[in-house]
Amino acid sequence: MEQEKKINIIYGQSGGPTSVINSSAYGLIKEAKKHADKIEKIYAMHFGIEGLLNEDIIDLTSLQDDELKKLLTTPGAAFGSNRYKLNDEITDKEKYDKIISIFDKYNIHYFFYNGGNDSMETILKISNYAKKIGYKLNSIGIPKTIDNDLCEMDHSPGYPSAIRYIANSVSQIYYDDKSYLSGRVNIVEIMGRNAGWLTASTKLAELNGAKIDLIYVPEVPFSLEDFLNKVIEIYNAKKHCLVCISEGIRNKNGKLIGTIKEEEDAFGHTQLGGVSVYLSHLITEKLKIKTRYFELSLLQRSNSIIPSIVDIKEAMMVGKKALLEALKGKTGKLIAIKRISNSPYKVKYVTIDISKVANKERTLPLKYINKEGNNVTDEFLEYATPLIRDKKGNGLFEVFRVD
Amino acid sequence: MEQEKKINIIYGQSGGPTSVINSSAYGLIKEAKKHADKIEKIYAMHFGIEGLLNEDIIDLTSLQDDELKKLLTTPGAAFGSNRYKLNDEITDKEKYDKIISIFDKYNIHYFFYNGGNDSMETILKISNYAKKIGYKLNSIGIPKTIDNDLCEMDHSPGYPSAIRYIANSVSQIYYDDKSYLSGRVNIVEIMGRNAGWLTASTKLAELNGAKIDLIYVPEVPFSLEDFLNKVIEIYNAKKHCLVCISEGIRNKNGKLIGTIKEEEDAFGHTQLGGVSVYLSHLITEKLKIKTRYFELSLLQRSNSIIPSIVDIKEAMMVGKKALLEALKGKTGKLIAIKRISNSPYKVKYVTIDISKVANKERTLPLKYINKEGNNVTDEFLEYATPLIRDKKGNGLFEVFRVD
Repeated sequence: MEQEKKINIIYGQSGGPTSVINSSAYGLIKEAKKHADKIEKIYAMHFGIEGLLNEDIIDLTSLQDDELKKLLTTPGAAFGSNRYKLNDEITDKEKYDKIISIFDKYNIHYFFYNGGNDSMETILKISNYAKKIGYKLNSIGIPKTIDNDLCEMDHSPGYPSAIRYIANSVSQIYYDDKSYLSGRVNIVEIMGRNAGWLTASTKLAELNGAKIDLIYVPEVPFSLEDFLNKVIEIYNAKKHCLVCISEGIRNKNGKLIGTIKEEEDAFGHTQLGGVSVYLSHLITEKLKIKTRYFELSLLQRSNSIIPSIVDIKEAMMVGKKALLEALKGKTGKLIAIKRISNSPYKVKYVTIDISKVANKERTLPLKYINKEGNNVTDEFLEYATPLIRDKKGNGLFEVFRVD
Repeated sequence: MEQEKKINIIYGQSGGPTSVINSSAYGLIKEAKKHADKIEKIYAMHFGIEGLLNEDIIDLTSLQDDELKKLLTTPGAAFGSNRYKLNDEITDKEKYDKIISIFDKYNIHYFFYNGGNDSMETILKISNYAKKIGYKLNSIGIPKTIDNDLCEMDHSPGYPSAIRYIANSVSQIYYDDKSYLSGRVNIVEIMGRNAGWLTASTKLAELNGAKIDLIYVPEVPFSLEDFLNKVIEIYNAKKHCLVCISEGIRNKNGKLIGTIKEEEDAFGHTQLGGVSVYLSHLITEKLKIKTRYFELSLLQRSNSIIPSIVDIKEAMMVGKKALLEALKGKTGKLIAIKRISNSPYKVKYVTIDISKVANKERTLPLKYINKEGNNVTDEFLEYATPLIRDKKGNGLFEVFRVD
């Protein structure tokens, strides 16, 4: 251990951005500046590992808090992200050696990577390789994902802001349609290839009086026939129908509903989109009811206009804790959020092995889905409600209602 | 004139909602409550003229300000809107008589209608009919439209909030794409069948450092060939390209882009969705570049999460002025906003003849469109910037930039 010698740290962003990935960066950088006795330089990778391999590094050491604070409202990945996939040590030996040699050149011995389950695998690989060749490297993962599919944590930073945006958007759609005596079937498509966490959150719109008639998540096989029957039943009864659907819903044979085109990204994921367009046209055609479709698309993850205050604070804390754990000598770990109590909402931050999270996926528990498989339970609402609340209220706008 | 006798007033909403249509209602109701010496009952039509014809009327007289204030944050048309078209006096004589008889039954002699150019025609028709049969009715129009296509005014209430939402959303899309070294061609489809006012406003995203590469409005004929050439030129140069397009762009023969039939589809897929979906697929197919499309859809008009403060205030004022003008004995008039100065931004409220506005349309002036017809001018930015500004800044989120 070279605790007495000053070292440099590097921080990188990876995977899809969230509303608060830059808040984690802020929490980490702010804390790092307090440890100038141990830390000399604070670096960021420009475009994560992909940039690092080209020695594209940003020096943040002299940035003042005034400037850094803007990170709290900045959407996207401020330092540049990447979807670079590092293969195993044998196939990509050259790249592993290059990363370590750049770390060595810049005297970097603390490595922080802010990402989802794929990115956690990247840290684990680099961390293991460094250990193997005897390069001193404390590697800590900072979780983020709007999908909320990371294991071992109550929720992931990024999820609360995404669902605050979703709940408010869906509520707006509800009240817009309510403007008319006879409305439409509105179909809102929410991100989530395999996990229904985001789509489930549309239920939060009910906190200010909206009504979400149907919710379909990838965890439950989707039946077109049942769907059309439910839609016509609901629409005939009240001349309005609000449906929220995960992009990744599949039929009982596992086939995606309404995919126009399947194309795989670097990690082997299928690029989705278009199920709401497909279902909307189907309803117009078969049921002769007016429809509208909505794809919130990446506005869900780049939401800087109505972030969750809880999320910003927690993301900062996770960044800060990552720095502190590295300083304590920890490596191969990740900072996770655990909920201690729901009312009042309280969390603690725990340090867990990255191997428990890397490349694993957590779907929506069945207890959160209703028996019919077409809505969510009150138990889910209890889970999600505290994540978007702030001092002013429940995280949604106030509504004047005529009933 | 029966100035000494107390009368009742009625307020109705019509056409598509805006973020601030309910703020106008608030301004009017609040002012009406101050004139309890003249006004006995404050009524609202439930679903506009359509509800009125069924005697569906809401009594707002006893509502307290605490409750009424929620109107300022409520999306949609809180009292219910409608798209009911009243034909001429001869064809629809029965309906005209029914409206007047309901007004008479409820002692209603002041009639306020909150809508766009079609709705202004409705007021004019009812106002003329009342005059003709000798029923005392002061009819005042309260303008609203996100399209900003009403004549005789600097801008319409509803437009500033719509463009604040659009500018922030587009900026988020820009910064999300900037997260990657190699991004996509992002195509954002904005409302506006005939007028480019909303699409032009995407330029406001540049106030916090975003770059809008191409803007296409319905006022300029759209050439697919020129478009594809520009996209590939821009994308090749910087690996990012952000395009904003009105839903109503047409080719030089006046044919809408992206509404071609299934069999004509360039790549054998069923044509679903709007122009952004069409262009996005076309780019993927012809240029082999990854794309994303965004349709902000009615979230543009139901935005309650980031309304313009200027807009809320002006909408309230327009509602208030409508009441005051009616009390002064005016009828067949509409309250319009005129800009006195741009810096500091100052407006006045003027009373104009509804006939100058009803059923007319104002498109984006050519001085606001660049020579190439694929972006907007600085003059447009000067026009639009004060509409979204607030005390805290320019109406957009602050950004930390690495360049």
